[in-house]
Amino acid sequence: MTDALEAGSVIGILGGGQLGRMLSMAAARLGYRCHIYDPAPLPPAGHVAQKVVTAPWDDATALQNFAAGVDVITFEFENIPTATLDLLEPLRPIRPGRQALAVSQDRLSEKDFLRELGLPTAPYAPVATAAELDAALAKVGAPAILKTRRLGYDGKGQARLQSADDAAGALAVMQGAEAILEGFVTFSHEVSVIAARGLNGDVAAFDPGENLHRDGILRETRVPARLSPAQRSDAVLIAAKILNALDYVGVLGVELFVTAQGLVVNEIAPRVHNSGHWTQDGCAVDQFEQHIRAVTGLPLGDGGRYADVVMENLIGDDMDRLPELLKARDVALHLYGKPECRAGRKMGHVNHIQRPKG
Amino acid sequence: MTDALEAGSVIGILGGGQLGRMLSMAAARLGYRCHIYDPAPLPPAGHVAQKVVTAPWDDATALQNFAAGVDVITFEFENIPTATLDLLEPLRPIRPGRQALAVSQDRLSEKDFLRELGLPTAPYAPVATAAELDAALAKVGAPAILKTRRLGYDGKGQARLQSADDAAGALAVMQGAEAILEGFVTFSHEVSVIAARGLNGDVAAFDPGENLHRDGILRETRVPARLSPAQRSDAVLIAAKILNALDYVGVLGVELFVTAQGLVVNEIAPRVHNSGHWTQDGCAVDQFEQHIRAVTGLPLGDGGRYADVVMENLIGDDMDRLPELLKARDVALHLYGKPECRAGRKMGHVNHIQRPKG
Repeated sequence: MTDALEAGSVIGILGGGQLGRMLSMAAARLGYRCHIYDPAPLPPAGHVAQKVVTAPWDDATALQNFAAGVDVITFEFENIPTATLDLLEPLRPIRPGRQALAVSQDRLSEKDFLRELGLPTAPYAPVATAAELDAALAKVGAPAILKTRRLGYDGKGQARLQSADDAAGALAVMQGAEAILEGFVTFSHEVSVIAARGLNGDVAAFDPGENLHRDGILRETRVPARLSPAQRSDAVLIAAKILNALDYVGVLGVELFVTAQGLVVNEIAPRVHNSGHWTQDGCAVDQFEQHIRAVTGLPLGDGGRYADVVMENLIGDDMDRLPELLKARDVALHLYGKPECRAGRKMGHVNHIQRPKG
Repeated sequence: MTDALEAGSVIGILGGGQLGRMLSMAAARLGYRCHIYDPAPLPPAGHVAQKVVTAPWDDATALQNFAAGVDVITFEFENIPTATLDLLEPLRPIRPGRQALAVSQDRLSEKDFLRELGLPTAPYAPVATAAELDAALAKVGAPAILKTRRLGYDGKGQARLQSADDAAGALAVMQGAEAILEGFVTFSHEVSVIAARGLNGDVAAFDPGENLHRDGILRETRVPARLSPAQRSDAVLIAAKILNALDYVGVLGVELFVTAQGLVVNEIAPRVHNSGHWTQDGCAVDQFEQHIRAVTGLPLGDGGRYADVVMENLIGDDMDRLPELLKARDVALHLYGKPECRAGRKMGHVNHIQRPKG
């Protein structure tokens, strides 16, 4: 624990959404305090943080003052502007570091990085022009999906191509942004591994969860996932390989397709991950605490699962079910305190704790 | 849920120690925000609350402003000055209410109240003068313990009498304060029931825990407690009787001695209780959330235990064991973020989660 931040130290979190909120509560349980930086006023994380700074990502003075008040900086989402990071980096350690952000902010860099590690991904090719799209289609095949290289998530900035006939329409959706064409992978189900790497290089992984998406949004994660022992071991080794290659510090989410040919990496997220929320009610140390341990230099904790869990996101109208969920058995509620309930908005999640049979 | 506070409502908490801190985090999980009122600056609860007011208990303006900013008021300790409550009561609902506070702020009233309910307590008698102490000793017998009627906890303001010879010395410890002489009860062990009563009168209880004290401070709570099914049922019925008699809203802790003649009530605490901390890692809904549900008018939740737990307080030098606890298996850490570690100070607790055997 030589390098660990002392009790009472302050963690700066970039982004004050639900992930920042749950990170802040985990930090408190370890005796740390959190300051939140978010351009939007009244962020959900602000309800449970010692301080909130409301300022744009390009406000140099606000960023400098924020850095001066904290001992280490982390973030709840990967698309933080490069200029912001350039300004903060000389002032305080940013964990995980720039390399992880650079790789994951760009779908093409991410795929190239994974391939260089020898990890299987969907077939892909870069696309900036109509000619490149033709070439990419020839390489990847159709159907395929065209995605902007940057800032795309949850189905935004994406277009499906059933055949080459859809090329022009799909390219228009990109609005001139650099893109990547990805082929489809035939898979039976998707799993994800939430893994952590400590400041000292130790690696730990939670049990893989099985994810169910609808309309491009995660709906449910079930733990344990349907995986053979060999697949489970593969999943964890893939995550460890990525963490080590990035000299990573913190928690990382890796989404994997389960195929007849083995596991294929779908994408990585350099942060705590929605599919890891089950750990709050199934493990002594959850993904949020594990991330805080890593970025503060504490030893990683025991993420062993002591209960099976089904995590269910509460999105938009799902909140109508709240009265019933409040009365349900073995249901742990985690609401995000967002003021407005809109369609498609993640308002909270519940962990359905599965009691041992018999 | 007709009477329940809307999401985003604000709960005012009197007292910003570890109990207020854990209440604030539980409130956040239900979508509420908390404001903390505490005379001491930088209270631990302030790290995870939306707002902190630092002002004395007799600052009428600060109290009025505090009340104006919240929708309901609750508290983390029972010894709030009467004048403070007088000022707040007309402004916002205080839950649990005055009756519970009046009873529990005075050891004599508490014992009288319990006896009127037909509940067994240790033998006791009021003591204000040397003559009354003689009479009390004749009634209660020796050895016995003399306690101030008000503001005593964790062994402060108490004196043991091995025989009548100790009378004068014990009375001196009271420094003129009204006191109560309590006889000793021969018991095999102490248990406590953490129970809740909702705004609609529903009652729910967590499984009783078995408490281990050292030097007058709770060290450990083990769940399940050593109780026969009949004793367990008695314990819950006693708690329910108390809750209903007080028209109580919120969580209450009841300490019970297990004797050959049955359960004897030691004391009650009109708040979340140290011996209920195990619920954080053994139940889908813990005592803090249960309290918030009650005071906001939400339905009480399922407090069923899904794991056995040993809760261990970290007091003073116990913090030296932190490096080892951080690496231990099935240990959930809950630190309080207190700046100074002093002898006898509760710095945090750990829940040792007991996995099902085999």
